[in-house]
Amino acid sequence: MNTIGNIYKVSIFGESHGVALGCCVDGCPAGIPLTEDDFAEDLARRKSGAKGTTPRKEDDLPQIVSGVFQGHTTGAPITILFHNNNTKSKDYSQLFDHPRPGHADFVARVKYGGFNDYTGGGHFSGRITLGLVAAGVIAKKIIAPMNVNAQILEVGGSKDIESAVAKAIETHDSIGGIVECTINNVPVGLGEPFFASVESEISRMAFSIPAIKGIEFGAGFNVAKMTGSQNNDNILDVNGRTETNNAGGINGGISNGNPIVFRVAVKPTPSISLSQDTFNIKDGKVEPLVIQGRHDLCIVLRVPPVLEAAAAIALADLSLVAQTAKRVFTKQ
Amino acid sequence: MNTIGNIYKVSIFGESHGVALGCCVDGCPAGIPLTEDDFAEDLARRKSGAKGTTPRKEDDLPQIVSGVFQGHTTGAPITILFHNNNTKSKDYSQLFDHPRPGHADFVARVKYGGFNDYTGGGHFSGRITLGLVAAGVIAKKIIAPMNVNAQILEVGGSKDIESAVAKAIETHDSIGGIVECTINNVPVGLGEPFFASVESEISRMAFSIPAIKGIEFGAGFNVAKMTGSQNNDNILDVNGRTETNNAGGINGGISNGNPIVFRVAVKPTPSISLSQDTFNIKDGKVEPLVIQGRHDLCIVLRVPPVLEAAAAIALADLSLVAQTAKRVFTKQ
Amino acid sequence: MNTIGNIYKVSIFGESHGVALGCCVDGCPAGIPLTEDDFAEDLARRKSGAKGTTPRKEDDLPQIVSGVFQGHTTGAPITILFHNNNTKSKDYSQLFDHPRPGHADFVARVKYGGFNDYTGGGHFSGRITLGLVAAGVIAKKIIAPMNVNAQILEVGGSKDIESAVAKAIETHDSIGGIVECTINNVPVGLGEPFFASVESEISRMAFSIPAIKGIEFGAGFNVAKMTGSQNNDNILDVNGRTETNNAGGINGGISNGNPIVFRVAVKPTPSISLSQDTFNIKDGKVEPLVIQGRHDLCIVLRVPPVLEAAAAIALADLSLVAQTAKRVFTKQ
Amino acid sequence: MNTIGNIYKVSIFGESHGVALGCCVDGCPAGIPLTEDDFAEDLARRKSGAKGTTPRKEDDLPQIVSGVFQGHTTGAPITILFHNNNTKSKDYSQLFDHPRPGHADFVARVKYGGFNDYTGGGHFSGRITLGLVAAGVIAKKIIAPMNVNAQILEVGGSKDIESAVAKAIETHDSIGGIVECTINNVPVGLGEPFFASVESEISRMAFSIPAIKGIEFGAGFNVAKMTGSQNNDNILDVNGRTETNNAGGINGGISNGNPIVFRVAVKPTPSISLSQDTFNIKDGKVEPLVIQGRHDLCIVLRVPPVLEAAAAIALADLSLVAQTAKRVFTKQ
Repeated sequence: MNTIGNIYKVSIFGESHGVALGCCVDGCPAGIPLTEDDFAEDLARRKSGAKGTTPRKEDDLPQIVSGVFQGHTTGAPITILFHNNNTKSKDYSQLFDHPRPGHADFVARVKYGGFNDYTGGGHFSGRITLGLVAAGVIAKKIIAPMNVNAQILEVGGSKDIESAVAKAIETHDSIGGIVECTINNVPVGLGEPFFASVESEISRMAFSIPAIKGIEFGAGFNVAKMTGSQNNDNILDVNGRTETNNAGGINGGISNGNPIVFRVAVKPTPSISLSQDTFNIKDGKVEPLVIQGRHDLCIVLRVPPVLEAAAAIALADLSLVAQTAKRVFTKQ
Repeated sequence: MNTIGNIYKVSIFGESHGVALGCCVDGCPAGIPLTEDDFAEDLARRKSGAKGTTPRKEDDLPQIVSGVFQGHTTGAPITILFHNNNTKSKDYSQLFDHPRPGHADFVARVKYGGFNDYTGGGHFSGRITLGLVAAGVIAKKIIAPMNVNAQILEVGGSKDIESAVAKAIETHDSIGGIVECTINNVPVGLGEPFFASVESEISRMAFSIPAIKGIEFGAGFNVAKMTGSQNNDNILDVNGRTETNNAGGINGGISNGNPIVFRVAVKPTPSISLSQDTFNIKDGKVEPLVIQGRHDLCIVLRVPPVLEAAAAIALADLSLVAQTAKRVFTKQ
Repeated sequence: MNTIGNIYKVSIFGESHGVALGCCVDGCPAGIPLTEDDFAEDLARRKSGAKGTTPRKEDDLPQIVSGVFQGHTTGAPITILFHNNNTKSKDYSQLFDHPRPGHADFVARVKYGGFNDYTGGGHFSGRITLGLVAAGVIAKKIIAPMNVNAQILEVGGSKDIESAVAKAIETHDSIGGIVECTINNVPVGLGEPFFASVESEISRMAFSIPAIKGIEFGAGFNVAKMTGSQNNDNILDVNGRTETNNAGGINGGISNGNPIVFRVAVKPTPSISLSQDTFNIKDGKVEPLVIQGRHDLCIVLRVPPVLEAAAAIALADLSLVAQTAKRVFTKQ
Repeated sequence: MNTIGNIYKVSIFGESHGVALGCCVDGCPAGIPLTEDDFAEDLARRKSGAKGTTPRKEDDLPQIVSGVFQGHTTGAPITILFHNNNTKSKDYSQLFDHPRPGHADFVARVKYGGFNDYTGGGHFSGRITLGLVAAGVIAKKIIAPMNVNAQILEVGGSKDIESAVAKAIETHDSIGGIVECTINNVPVGLGEPFFASVESEISRMAFSIPAIKGIEFGAGFNVAKMTGSQNNDNILDVNGRTETNNAGGINGGISNGNPIVFRVAVKPTPSISLSQDTFNIKDGKVEPLVIQGRHDLCIVLRVPPVLEAAAAIALADLSLVAQTAKRVFTKQ
């Protein structure tokens, strides 16, 4: 189930401390200019290094293994690798028996009968989102002139992000936040009724990002308190432009030509250095856990390019699917 | 794109004013007791009739067309039909040219080049959720002893639902609300990392329900304001029971054995009888629109069984997928 | 697994003696003229009535339940039903315990734990191909100006079909045959490398038809005896027209612009009235079985429209998929 | 469309002269012992080196990039790479303009608008089957105790394979052949009616192998000449063992417990060193083509392990799908 998409199909693979991780992208049309440099910007935005992010340093240099020839996509599947260099597996061995609260340690152990790679979170590491970002860079090229732009709205409940991070560092605790994503230049007609609604496809992708616990489109949860006359977006012209955008650019699951707008809630990373009382499987009792290793205190800082990728992948697939209906039948 | 699921596959079809609507369910194991009576309870809960719901009356009697023999599922695809009886198509003809704000009228016309069935909202009608509810009834049997239970938390911003509806009737306006869904008796290990996370699969299904504009799991949007030490759910025993349930029963996309809890925001129905100034395509200008026909003022009242069905369908598929990994390999 | 296709998705359902059978077709573009009359020709060709076919008579009138409005497809899923009228279920009850050799009776009983509908072959009946033919009629419209034409090459090892059938009737035995299918006006570029090669997609559909046991494309099994210089089809012009067509119109899994040609082997129907010595599960021993009921002696006579439908469905999906790659990127 | 499978999903990627090629395998249960050595045997059988095979030498050493930890599968996706070392791209540049008859050169150029990687056949190279063989090795472990065994029946129309190859070398021509594959220890009940019949799934995989132009199961094309009384396989015991195996182990698309047997026709490789008169796109006329480079004269010699892999992949997926129906419901 690590593959998504009907036409633009993305498979991701890899582990935090394995040989390499990456993605395999299928269904990308031929002829799109693509080089390894094209990934640099989004990868840099995702990278750690800022205050509040993990001290683990990785080059995160993408290697295009297939599907590109003479600087263009060929129509064949594109596999992109990121080699892991800076791995410290000894940090994680205790967590197999003493799983971190809020993390996937416990469920991974049970689900895979103890065969899961638990070093660095294994396949559940946020590091796997490198493959998403790479697939997103290609998706952004497919959906142009649509453009996708995510930004942090608040961190730790505050709009003053810098001080919120400073406080987290000081208290040795982690913090969450909210990220908003806007897609402009969206044509009318993307998305399918019901199961492949724009909301369905974007939310499915967004919840593929570790730490996301909520999503809302347009006016979002506020619609619950609004009346129809407040919430309805009056249409202004033949292109479907609306006076307000409470719908977040989507009606009946279909894009309506206005910007698609959605927000996600990012939880605080579970790996904190404060002591936590939680069950130790080996010892058969609740015991204090103090987590070693290198972790992000404020993962939300690194979410925007990943969220953009998630949205771009969903929209690339919906765009290509929409092309299948473009055969012209004139109404009689 | 009207089919969903990897193993438990649900296809829905039909129009508000067509011959019939329904669902085709594939991948259901053989041997599950199933009769048409089994659908009665959830269909009744979805039905109109209460104050604030549409005056359109339909029997909503399910007809099992295939896949059931001598009172049990056979393993073959199960098709269930609901015949439309009470259709008043004349009510809707004007809306093709003068699309309702907040509704799918405009996008449907553009997406399908004017060939869409616009009577009663056509394939975008909330009536299509009958097929979801039917598929959900079967899904609930597959996932037992898990049980799914949705309830309304608030309507029109108020917990006093009756008075909120009365006010909406009085003001001829529609209102939204919030519905919470809880799934109990969930085993550890449902869901797959990333694209088929429990959150991904449930949200995708939930956003297939018309009028849903937001979803959050566990502590939801509140996680954005919490620290890791507040949000982390300490594990209490070998079964993964946790002290709190901020994760809503899901870590790393995988069920952790605690109840799955999520909430959705339901928007007010766009069809209101108040006049709205919105673009008339035929006339080429913004004009007042007064909507005729029979509509729900408070669709949230009918959402709970539909939301339960959405969750049950997602979990049925994840449960069957999880069975494919059950081959026993003992760790050496 | 009763749904096929990436974009043009066909689900089939039903049983020989159930309420109704049919298909649900998703992904059909809007605006295609479609009425119930359009199915008449192919359904008539599939019908029984000729010497050598079953005496069971059914109207086989299609009912379009959804997805068509004012004589055109709407873009929404199209469900088509065929009601069963002429069922004689008492004929089949013995076969549950004394399964017919060559038929699905035994495997269906084991696979579904005895819950399968065994009347008239249940979901394994050739009657289910009605849904295929219906989905094929729509597919043929999508792929026009491609046209699909199947014809019988031989029956019971003979090209004199009439006398072969007469002999089968006389000997109370059934006979097989070979059917060839040709698709003309095929553009270059349908099919995808490897898993969605034209051969893969057509063969997968063809083997969905009960009684097909072999398929070959172009020169087929003869290629095994040919040299490269004999088998290679020299290209004559810029459109890819070839001197010979040993490839059956397909190179590297992709259509090459020449007619697609393939042949299938149809086995003799297993239900014969001659006594057969075969295992009786209830009695626990091999016993003579004399099959009652109404059966085809020469099912190959009814295969051509079903095989055309199978090919048309595969090509409709490949055509729609190919449209997703049509975004123009000029080579630099 | 380079991904196949419902649960056991295989994606293949790469080009003949690219950086690397390989496969990404998803849905493999955790806990299967797996090391790089496990691939050695099948890769060696596929390797060139024998008379009649290409002089290009590659190590074909698999690198497991993800999904394996401490010698066992983890349940996460398994990516396996094969690095290309011995590439001579200059050999192929002329073929872009002067496409080889019988090869994918022409269709690839048209389908991908000239952006295809044409060196060494690019993504259409038989070399891509390395990824299939690797995915097949894992599949074989999943389906054990089923075992898959393919052998060459004839080459160039002869059972004396050695002399047939010698003659081909002498005449500078290529030759085809027939390979038979048998799967033993098959349980009753694999496969699904219609679209996922065992024949559908195996044939779809088999036609993913370059050069396959026909497939037949059991008695295959001979059934067309047989009567029902000759072709029917009488059942001998409660396990479904049959007297004959004309059905090739499959009834109604479902495995019947007897060995699955099928044969494929392999065409002679199109790349021959004899001169061929075929269209030159650049020159706009038919001209003699003499193909340089390193090619197989008798690719059939290398097909058996690839065909086994194709069958194993299909059966692994069907086996895992069949597990989803294993919930026990006792017949009442």
